[in-house]
Amino acid sequence: MEAQSETMESPVSNLDEHYVVGVDFGTLSGRAVVVRVSDGAELGSATHDYAHGVMDSVLAATGAALPPEWALQVPSDYVDVLRNAVPAAVRAAGIDPAAVIGLGTDFTACTMIPVLADGTPLSELPELAAEPHAYVKLWKHHAAQPQADRINVLAADRGEAWLPRYGGLISSEWEFAKGLELLEESPAVYERMDHWVEAADWIVWQLTGTYVRNACTAGYKGILQDGQYPSADFLAALNPAFAGFVADKLEHEIGQLGDAAGTLSAQAATWTGLPEGIAIAVGNVDAHVTAPAAQATRPGQLVAIMGTSTCHVMNSDVLTEVPGMCGVVDGGIVSGLYGYEAGQSGVGDIFAWYVKNQVPGSYHEDATAAGRSIHEHLTELVKDQPVGGHGLIALDWNGGNRSVLVDAELSGLLVGQTLTTRPEEIYRALFEATAFGTREIVEAFTGSGVPVTEFIVAGGLLRNPFLMQVYSDVLRMPLSIIASEQGPALGSAIHAAVAAGAYPSVLAAGEAMGKVTRAVYEPRPEAADAYDALYAEYRALHDYFGRGANDVMHRLKAMRRAASREQVTA
Amino acid sequence: MEAQSETMESPVSNLDEHYVVGVDFGTLSGRAVVVRVSDGAELGSATHDYAHGVMDSVLAATGAALPPEWALQVPSDYVDVLRNAVPAAVRAAGIDPAAVIGLGTDFTACTMIPVLADGTPLSELPELAAEPHAYVKLWKHHAAQPQADRINVLAADRGEAWLPRYGGLISSEWEFAKGLELLEESPAVYERMDHWVEAADWIVWQLTGTYVRNACTAGYKGILQDGQYPSADFLAALNPAFAGFVADKLEHEIGQLGDAAGTLSAQAATWTGLPEGIAIAVGNVDAHVTAPAAQATRPGQLVAIMGTSTCHVMNSDVLTEVPGMCGVVDGGIVSGLYGYEAGQSGVGDIFAWYVKNQVPGSYHEDATAAGRSIHEHLTELVKDQPVGGHGLIALDWNGGNRSVLVDAELSGLLVGQTLTTRPEEIYRALFEATAFGTREIVEAFTGSGVPVTEFIVAGGLLRNPFLMQVYSDVLRMPLSIIASEQGPALGSAIHAAVAAGAYPSVLAAGEAMGKVTRAVYEPRPEAADAYDALYAEYRALHDYFGRGANDVMHRLKAMRRAASREQVTA
Repeated sequence: MEAQSETMESPVSNLDEHYVVGVDFGTLSGRAVVVRVSDGAELGSATHDYAHGVMDSVLAATGAALPPEWALQVPSDYVDVLRNAVPAAVRAAGIDPAAVIGLGTDFTACTMIPVLADGTPLSELPELAAEPHAYVKLWKHHAAQPQADRINVLAADRGEAWLPRYGGLISSEWEFAKGLELLEESPAVYERMDHWVEAADWIVWQLTGTYVRNACTAGYKGILQDGQYPSADFLAALNPAFAGFVADKLEHEIGQLGDAAGTLSAQAATWTGLPEGIAIAVGNVDAHVTAPAAQATRPGQLVAIMGTSTCHVMNSDVLTEVPGMCGVVDGGIVSGLYGYEAGQSGVGDIFAWYVKNQVPGSYHEDATAAGRSIHEHLTELVKDQPVGGHGLIALDWNGGNRSVLVDAELSGLLVGQTLTTRPEEIYRALFEATAFGTREIVEAFTGSGVPVTEFIVAGGLLRNPFLMQVYSDVLRMPLSIIASEQGPALGSAIHAAVAAGAYPSVLAAGEAMGKVTRAVYEPRPEAADAYDALYAEYRALHDYFGRGANDVMHRLKAMRRAASREQVTA
Repeated sequence: MEAQSETMESPVSNLDEHYVVGVDFGTLSGRAVVVRVSDGAELGSATHDYAHGVMDSVLAATGAALPPEWALQVPSDYVDVLRNAVPAAVRAAGIDPAAVIGLGTDFTACTMIPVLADGTPLSELPELAAEPHAYVKLWKHHAAQPQADRINVLAADRGEAWLPRYGGLISSEWEFAKGLELLEESPAVYERMDHWVEAADWIVWQLTGTYVRNACTAGYKGILQDGQYPSADFLAALNPAFAGFVADKLEHEIGQLGDAAGTLSAQAATWTGLPEGIAIAVGNVDAHVTAPAAQATRPGQLVAIMGTSTCHVMNSDVLTEVPGMCGVVDGGIVSGLYGYEAGQSGVGDIFAWYVKNQVPGSYHEDATAAGRSIHEHLTELVKDQPVGGHGLIALDWNGGNRSVLVDAELSGLLVGQTLTTRPEEIYRALFEATAFGTREIVEAFTGSGVPVTEFIVAGGLLRNPFLMQVYSDVLRMPLSIIASEQGPALGSAIHAAVAAGAYPSVLAAGEAMGKVTRAVYEPRPEAADAYDALYAEYRALHDYFGRGANDVMHRLKAMRRAASREQVTA
């Protein structure tokens, strides 16, 4: 399989006088960036917060309480990003909107919206405004775990060929688990729904007036493999009423990444202030779209997008099954290559949890006095300690484990505390734990015949040089760093440029517009040796607690849920 | 074996017009209490802080840094307690000093002083004032671990009969390990030393002018079993220069608990303001002396003295070997019964460590605003959560594990953290972990044919009712509570009364002067059932990390030490 040719001439001339807009839809806000087509220069940007944020405790429309592990959003908040952030970014860039030739988007995933045939979200129907199931189910809505468990058991029992493509486990976050949850929890809403749509595609639909289903989410989240979804027979075995899920609710024309899904509609032109008729790229996912922004779309280049969680994406020209990956999808990152995705459920959010819940006030005061963030302060206090000096090992599973164990029921662990253990030492142990978790993933790839040849970091955590050095030492690899502050939006802009015909391929556009600095961090051999010893301990604990020798974490979560129900009842 | 007769007449008349003084020498201060002989009424008390406290980072005399795990004291600080706290307590009691008929003491153990033949501490010789090894080695001086390891390996290899009396392991805190450390680290001080004396006996020596070695520390800390110490042959195998340790430095006349070691000397009478010639009880240990103060000297009555650590003492009329106990000593608690001791190295100090290092400032502010201590505040926040509601399990080994694993190289563990785990939930998990650790000990006793029939709590932690309820639920036993604020000092006063002849036995004196409230807390069946499930998880982790399946804690401590040396070198 070959990537698209890179030699054909661009049909757009004067690339340095034309612009594209990338819009990154995150968990709490959307960000628009205006980018020059010739070199990827970022000329202006703007963000817009979602008015309703994440609804994880109450439904805004009624104030009714939501169950644990729910996370909903309001679709109109996304449209408000188009109305506000896009024109603001264009103004900030100081360009003529008429010089914009295309717009691309990326979204959180798997974030699902139940809609009517014309794309109207069910939550916008007055009679369903009070129904939680009519709203957007955000990626981190985790209440479909029972459904995911049934999907996994049944697929394993039947030997479904698609299961190994997802490391053997389908996530509760994905389209089928959330779809089955909707059917079983709210049959009326399920019945009323014409399409079960990725937010990534719904926003493109709002821009173009046409529904195109992107190859990335269809593959990674929608179990589309080799042109086939799970069979009606399989779905009926899950629940007879679910037999028609693919045919009736899910299936739709697929668009390849970098293609145009359509052109900007008259209505969306009024929202955005951009010219009607410009190219709108096929929808995409925040992590995957970052690869070309970091010039990292060639086989073996792994991009780790490190934020609250970490997503790892890597292309390869071979199709294989890597244990515990989130998925492998033909054209899932760039058209023409196999895209592999892996993930760590908790990274930055573990550090944030720790700083909020486990660091004394005096540390915050000292940080303020030193003019540093609390993260910078803790880092400063512990960064010069020799490796192993804290005597601690943590497992980075406070948010469960996505790769390579694919088990949301796992939880955190810390071992080695003494009466002299200091807060900054535990903080560092959490840093290291996430690095060890990354090493598990890199070794799983390399051990499966898909070697990782370059490790490229994007995402907010790259701003901590000590954390980066830990990763370099633990991985024994140089670290390349994306040279843009807004990788996903830049990646979306790159896709817009390809959709508009300015470049023949995402690879070519990424080489021209993407930004990376190579080998910013180099492994230090002595530290790497010491980390090897800690990693051996991590791995032993990882396997003991993660592979069934002691399922205490599962049992503790079950007890916690039972106690929570007891408390609600009481 | 029978306890002493309780029927003989007291040789002291008008017990309600006579008084005894108990002096409790703690880690940071000494406390004197004046007690009425007839009923144990506590009429006045006073404390005196040690001027030098604990020297664990620098030697006060020179400012020189001390190595990690050292803990020294200054002997004259103990004499200052006699000079200050005793007269102050007598004044506070408003009694005539002439009505005092005896004085008893208890001490931390194993706390060792190297002295000349006349009792002069080597640290008081001008030429040795700058030598750290000339000072008191406090119980928590832990630098003799390598020596303890060698003692244990050799004793196990040779099948030494005394080893099983200590649960199979001799502590680094005890007389032999610290003695061998002294020989090997400072041969000149060792050579100069005439006696290696327990502080418990040294203070009695200061009071009477006579050196009497008490049966309690000689047995529990000095490996005196069936009238024999470890053989010269064994000692020579440890180190040829150590062969004469028992004969030359340790061996001395033994005094039984409750006996008089002598009478108050003229000099000590001037220090204390008490009448020259009154009875001075044989020295004793803070934990063991508490048993009669809680009316708990009959077989099967286990007293848990719960403070920074917990010490468990229990009498029995049978001699057996309980796995992991600290020791069984004939007459070790009261003369005529076998005294069993077990311990948990970290309890209150784990809670204190947690509160200092892992609780956000906002919690401290809220506690202050609510007029509560931080411990009360955390307890209040979490006490009504159903058992298991936090989804956490901890191992209470931040200070190592004394019973039943006898392994100072173990460390803490916490499992089950999520991104919503709150500080108070971890605090409660630490409470529970110490209760589970206690249950291990109770089950070890009962499983070895020495059943625990009553569980009696003394020590500062009894002031937390929620903690007490957790213990009652976890143990499925009612909890009796000592009814004195100063159990050890009251226990010392009880021993003084027996030494003065006011009562025929410690048992009889304890029944008259000790104070306990029975069954203050009762186990709640539903909570106990839920704790059983958590305890099963605790036990699985306890055995996995504590019994060799995964020695990660040992390896982490070794790495920590190596890194610390590296840092010192660098």
